[in-house]
Amino acid sequence: MRKRISILGSTGSIGTQTLEVVRENEDMFQVVALAAMQNIDELEKQINEFKPKYVAVYDKSKADLLRSRIDSKTKVFSSLEGIIEIASNEDVDLVLNSVVGSIGLLPTLHAIRNGKDVALANKETLVVGGELITKEISKHNVKITPVDSEHSAIFQCLQGEDVQNVSRLILTASGGPFRSWSKEQLLDATHTDALKHPNWSMGRKISIDSATLMNKGLEVIEAKWLFNVQVDKIDVVIHPQSVIHSMVEFKDKSVIAQLGLPDMKLPIQYALTYPNRVESNLPGLEFSKYSTLTFEEPDHHRFPCLHLAYEAIKIGGTMPCVLNAANEVLVNLFLEGKIKFYDISNYIEEIMNIHKSSKYDSFEELLEIDEWARAWIVKNIKG
Amino acid sequence: MRKRISILGSTGSIGTQTLEVVRENEDMFQVVALAAMQNIDELEKQINEFKPKYVAVYDKSKADLLRSRIDSKTKVFSSLEGIIEIASNEDVDLVLNSVVGSIGLLPTLHAIRNGKDVALANKETLVVGGELITKEISKHNVKITPVDSEHSAIFQCLQGEDVQNVSRLILTASGGPFRSWSKEQLLDATHTDALKHPNWSMGRKISIDSATLMNKGLEVIEAKWLFNVQVDKIDVVIHPQSVIHSMVEFKDKSVIAQLGLPDMKLPIQYALTYPNRVESNLPGLEFSKYSTLTFEEPDHHRFPCLHLAYEAIKIGGTMPCVLNAANEVLVNLFLEGKIKFYDISNYIEEIMNIHKSSKYDSFEELLEIDEWARAWIVKNIKG
Repeated sequence: MRKRISILGSTGSIGTQTLEVVRENEDMFQVVALAAMQNIDELEKQINEFKPKYVAVYDKSKADLLRSRIDSKTKVFSSLEGIIEIASNEDVDLVLNSVVGSIGLLPTLHAIRNGKDVALANKETLVVGGELITKEISKHNVKITPVDSEHSAIFQCLQGEDVQNVSRLILTASGGPFRSWSKEQLLDATHTDALKHPNWSMGRKISIDSATLMNKGLEVIEAKWLFNVQVDKIDVVIHPQSVIHSMVEFKDKSVIAQLGLPDMKLPIQYALTYPNRVESNLPGLEFSKYSTLTFEEPDHHRFPCLHLAYEAIKIGGTMPCVLNAANEVLVNLFLEGKIKFYDISNYIEEIMNIHKSSKYDSFEELLEIDEWARAWIVKNIKG
Repeated sequence: MRKRISILGSTGSIGTQTLEVVRENEDMFQVVALAAMQNIDELEKQINEFKPKYVAVYDKSKADLLRSRIDSKTKVFSSLEGIIEIASNEDVDLVLNSVVGSIGLLPTLHAIRNGKDVALANKETLVVGGELITKEISKHNVKITPVDSEHSAIFQCLQGEDVQNVSRLILTASGGPFRSWSKEQLLDATHTDALKHPNWSMGRKISIDSATLMNKGLEVIEAKWLFNVQVDKIDVVIHPQSVIHSMVEFKDKSVIAQLGLPDMKLPIQYALTYPNRVESNLPGLEFSKYSTLTFEEPDHHRFPCLHLAYEAIKIGGTMPCVLNAANEVLVNLFLEGKIKFYDISNYIEEIMNIHKSSKYDSFEELLEIDEWARAWIVKNIKG
C-alpha cells in the first residue's frame, strides 16, 4: 500500500522538489493533501497532476478564487485552520512540513497529536518550540525524519548507533555567498548579493539566513532537540563545497559522515522512504569532480548571528523564540531593502538583551512572545 | 565478565597496538592466549605483563628457548599446530588474527569452526580462501569484525543499513610512498624508499604492498567477501590524507563515510568492542589540522598490481591464491634487494597467465596451489 502523504508548503522550493520525488516514486506515495500560503497558480497545476483529496490556502481570498477554478473532487480549506486540517487529516500517514517560519509550528504540533509521522523541513518547529514538540513526539510515539540536508546527514550517520555514544555533532556549513567578503564589504551587502547562493537552490528567507549564518545557528538549535544532544557538543565547520552534509563523532573518536551532491531531493527522498532507501535518478558523487574538500572555522566576528543562536539556546526557555521571531522580521526588512546587513544581528542582540527568558508550557505562551518580539522590532526600527 | 581474547601475531604492529587497547580497557578484556612467529624477547615481555594461560611460537627452537625462560603458569605451544591451538582454545571468546601472509588462513578457519568470533587483520584469510571462509562463517554463525582501517570503515558505515541497498563500496587509498613518483623513478625504487609510508605506521610486508598498491587490490578482494558485494561495485579512490577511511554509496546516491585520525588503534578497538563503542584516548579529528582533503584516480599504468588483483578476483577460484602467494614471495625478494619494483607486477602477471584457475573445496587444495605458486616464482626468478 502506498504511503499517504500531505505536503505543507507545496509550492515552495522544498514542496516542489518533494513532488518531484513523489512523481518518480508513484508506486510508493500518494499525495492526499497539499497546503500553500498563496501561490494558487502553482497549486492549481499540482492539483491537476496529483489530484489530492484536500488542499489548503493560507490566504482566504486566494482560497475562494481557487475553489472557483477547480472541480469539486478536491476540497479547499483556508487560513491557518485549513493548514492544520491538512496536517491532521485522518487519511494522512505522513506530513511533510516545509512551511517557512514559526507559523509552521502549530501544524506540526497537530500532526504529532494526531499520530502522524512528520518529515520536518520547517526549522522553526524545533527552534521555537523544541521542548514542547519533543515532549509531544515521545507522548504520541510518532517518527520525525529531518529534511534539512544537515539533519538528514546526522540522522543517517546515527542509524545503527547508540546516541549515548555520541561525543560531537559536526554541522557543516557552506559559508554562504558572503564567506569571503570582508566586514567592510558586508556593511553594504544587499539582498541581491545575498540571494546568490553558491551551492544550493533555496527559498528567499533561507538564502538570507545562509548569508548571515543564522541558518546554521537555527540548525544547531534544531539538532539539539532532534538528537537530544547538549549544545556544547554541537560544532559548526565551514565546508564550502557542501559535499559532506554533516558528521557525528563518537566517543571512540570515530567520525561518521554523510556525503552527496548538494541536491535537496536526496534528503527529501530519504525522509519519505525511511527506514528504507530506494533508487534515485540523481548522479552519483564523482570524486574526479569533487577532488578537493576544504574546511575552515566559522568567523564569529563577521557573522555574529551564529553566536547569537548559540547564546539563545544556552539560555533556553523563550529566548530561541525571540531570536527566531526577530530574525524573521529583520530578514523581511532586509529583503525589502529597508535595513542593512548588520542591522539583522544588531537588533537581535538588542532584543535578546531586553528579553527575560522564561520557561513555557504551551504553544499560546510562545505565540505571545513571538508576537511581542515581532512588534518590538517593527516599533524600534521605525522609531 | 571480561571478553577473553587470543591474539595471533602479538609481537607485530597490529598485535602490539591491540595490547595497547587491552591495556587501556583492562575491565573489558582478558588476554588468554598469544601467538608469535619468532620474536620471543617481545613475547616474553608480553607474558610478564598480561599473564596469558597459553602462548605459541611458530619457530620450534624459539619456543623451546622461551619455555626455559618463563615460569610454568603459561603453557608454550609451537609450530603452526600451536598457533591453531591458540586460535581454537576453549577458554577463548574472540580471536584477533594479525598474522601476516597466507599462513594466517588455517588458524582463522579453526577459530571459526570452534565457534570463536574473529577480529580479522590477516588479509590473506579472505583473499586466498574467501569462498571457503564465508561458507564456514555462516555455517558456524560467528561474527567477523574487520581490523583493517578500510574494512572497519565500511563495516561502520553499514551499521543499521541493508546491504541490499549498497550501490558501491569506495575504498580509499593513501597512494603510498610512491604516489607522486614517475614511472622512470619507480624503475629504480628500493625497499628503503618503499618503507617510508607517509601516514600509517605498519609492518614491512604491508608497507611494500602499499607502495605497489597491491595492498589496495587485496583489500578489494577482501571487501568482496566480507560484505558480499560484487567486485564491479568496488571502487578505489586515492586520498593522500588518509582521513576518510572508506565509504559506502547506497542506491539513493547517499554516501556514508567513516573518518578519523590515521591510527590503527581506532579500528582495532572497534573490532574488539563491537557492537559497542567505548571511550578512546585518541585525539579527535580537528578540521583545522585537516583543512584540505583531496581525491584522485589511481594510476593503473604506474601501479599495475591493483589491476592484477581486480583481474584475479574476477577470474575467481584459485587465481587470488596464486596472486597472493606470488606477491608474498616477490615482496620478500624486493625487501632483500634481489628484484626491482616492477619485477613484482611483471612476475605476478606472468604466473597469472600460466595458471589455469579452478574451483576449490578444501584448504588442502589451496595449500597445494599456494606452494606451487611460491615454487614457480623462486624457480623462474633464479633461472
